[in-house]
Amino acid sequence: MAMLTANEAAELLRTLDDVAVLAHKNPDEDTVGGSVALCAALRRMGKRARVLCSDPFSRQYAYLNLDGEAPEFEPSCYVAVDVADPVLLGGYEGAPVRLCIDHHPSNRLYAEDTCLAPTAAATCELLFDILAALGMKLDAFLANALYSGVAGDTGCFRFTNTTARTHEIAAALLAAGADAGNINRVLFEQKPMRYYEIERRALEGLKSYADGRCVCIAVTSEMKAACGADDSDLENISSLPRSIEGVLIGVTLKEQPGGRVRVSVRTQAPIDASAICGALGGGGHARAAGCEISGPPDAARERVLAVALPLLDN
Amino acid sequence: MAMLTANEAAELLRTLDDVAVLAHKNPDEDTVGGSVALCAALRRMGKRARVLCSDPFSRQYAYLNLDGEAPEFEPSCYVAVDVADPVLLGGYEGAPVRLCIDHHPSNRLYAEDTCLAPTAAATCELLFDILAALGMKLDAFLANALYSGVAGDTGCFRFTNTTARTHEIAAALLAAGADAGNINRVLFEQKPMRYYEIERRALEGLKSYADGRCVCIAVTSEMKAACGADDSDLENISSLPRSIEGVLIGVTLKEQPGGRVRVSVRTQAPIDASAICGALGGGGHARAAGCEISGPPDAARERVLAVALPLLDN
Repeated sequence: MAMLTANEAAELLRTLDDVAVLAHKNPDEDTVGGSVALCAALRRMGKRARVLCSDPFSRQYAYLNLDGEAPEFEPSCYVAVDVADPVLLGGYEGAPVRLCIDHHPSNRLYAEDTCLAPTAAATCELLFDILAALGMKLDAFLANALYSGVAGDTGCFRFTNTTARTHEIAAALLAAGADAGNINRVLFEQKPMRYYEIERRALEGLKSYADGRCVCIAVTSEMKAACGADDSDLENISSLPRSIEGVLIGVTLKEQPGGRVRVSVRTQAPIDASAICGALGGGGHARAAGCEISGPPDAARERVLAVALPLLDN
Repeated sequence: MAMLTANEAAELLRTLDDVAVLAHKNPDEDTVGGSVALCAALRRMGKRARVLCSDPFSRQYAYLNLDGEAPEFEPSCYVAVDVADPVLLGGYEGAPVRLCIDHHPSNRLYAEDTCLAPTAAATCELLFDILAALGMKLDAFLANALYSGVAGDTGCFRFTNTTARTHEIAAALLAAGADAGNINRVLFEQKPMRYYEIERRALEGLKSYADGRCVCIAVTSEMKAACGADDSDLENISSLPRSIEGVLIGVTLKEQPGGRVRVSVRTQAPIDASAICGALGGGGHARAAGCEISGPPDAARERVLAVALPLLDN
């Protein structure tokens, strides 16, 4: 196990052939864009390469489809992209990963060699450097792939992980032909009409506690049925309660089949979202966490509030 | 009337004193950030300068407050920032504008001299070049002001007006200390509760035309009164209709006191928003434009649709 620089990772990649590039399960923009960019680059170097992921890529990412059929070959090595922990490989857990290219500080260092950029906003920032070290000329396809990862992991340059270097790389990707306007529209703007139909109903039932410092919305199975929506239409709604001025704890409840409720908690400093969800059998990050609770939404809300509201008294 | 380069505008600014910097009415991030940055820069050059605007700046922009009281002096000249048309000066219409610094292609060339960057996403991009030509070192305050304008006019780098140059400038502003994370939260995430109360009512009255390719929402004076909201709470609502999948023309109507309606039109290619609003006495950009129409919202909507819907037949 060695830690490699971007240049060293590029040198290693030159020596590999018949490469399977691994993306993490529940694939997001960074693992999709990064694995696709690396696979395309390896093919341009005359190597056989394909992307493997235990979950299908969302149709949102259709613009990142690699040309033609994946070549049939037995991989001689595995390179993981944006995969912090082998458990995130899903069905490919246990593959002997020759190289892991990642930006998560929590990387488990499970690969034979690891190229880690813990201060990069996205693994695609690091891949930008690795492709440069390979002397790869960026075309529009590669630029679109890397741009998707950079934009995806920064909320389109909104989040505090965005650095001057992030913008420098974005500038280079746009100059190389990235179709940023259309990618941004697909990733960040466009919502189906049923999203807004659900949002309107959720806002009607919005409940506010502790002088507006805690706000809760619920999406019931009945609302989803009435609007023809499922949870894949509702990814962004969890950010709504915390976006309201003065809210320190934003709670979103999504009723599930089988009498369960999926709970998303988003907080502002100093409230610890993972402490709230941890007390309810879930977990996550300091400002965004989740859990699942049995029972109807009203009862689930009471259980969350019983844990959350006392935190506002401190 | 002469057209000036950024260098020539900088040379002219060196010769001016007792400068009133004019922002446009209904001030947005670009005119606020740009006028405040220019005013601060002129003061750093030892000149007396103040910002004038016919409308108060939203409290959102409190982080751009210039230090101390505006100095008392009789302006000897006026410099307009991001003001395409003298009518947008509101109460300052008629002021003899010595220099206009702007990026709107529709600029009326009303000033004695004009420095226009029609391909810049924001007037603050042009001001970045002008401050550089003045040899002004960017500190965090100037960087915050310019970043606000660049981020504001590009929807945080989402819109198609964002170029490689936009990201290069953002990189320089972050390197100079712009507090992008907090500014982004204020500008793009945080909304007052009354925003969502208005949004819910507007969604209830959403109207869809031409198989969902044109969508219209209206915010009436009654809604604003019921929610205790004014237009400064509603800046982002204009982007809602176009965010719906399949919408090429998104129209937002905001009823004003005095029986007028403020119309925002957002489009997708190939529909020209400025052509729609231009036909109704307004103007703007290819994908975002505005106008004002006398009469109640329903009548204003019919007038907009009469111009807009035929464009979908071509």
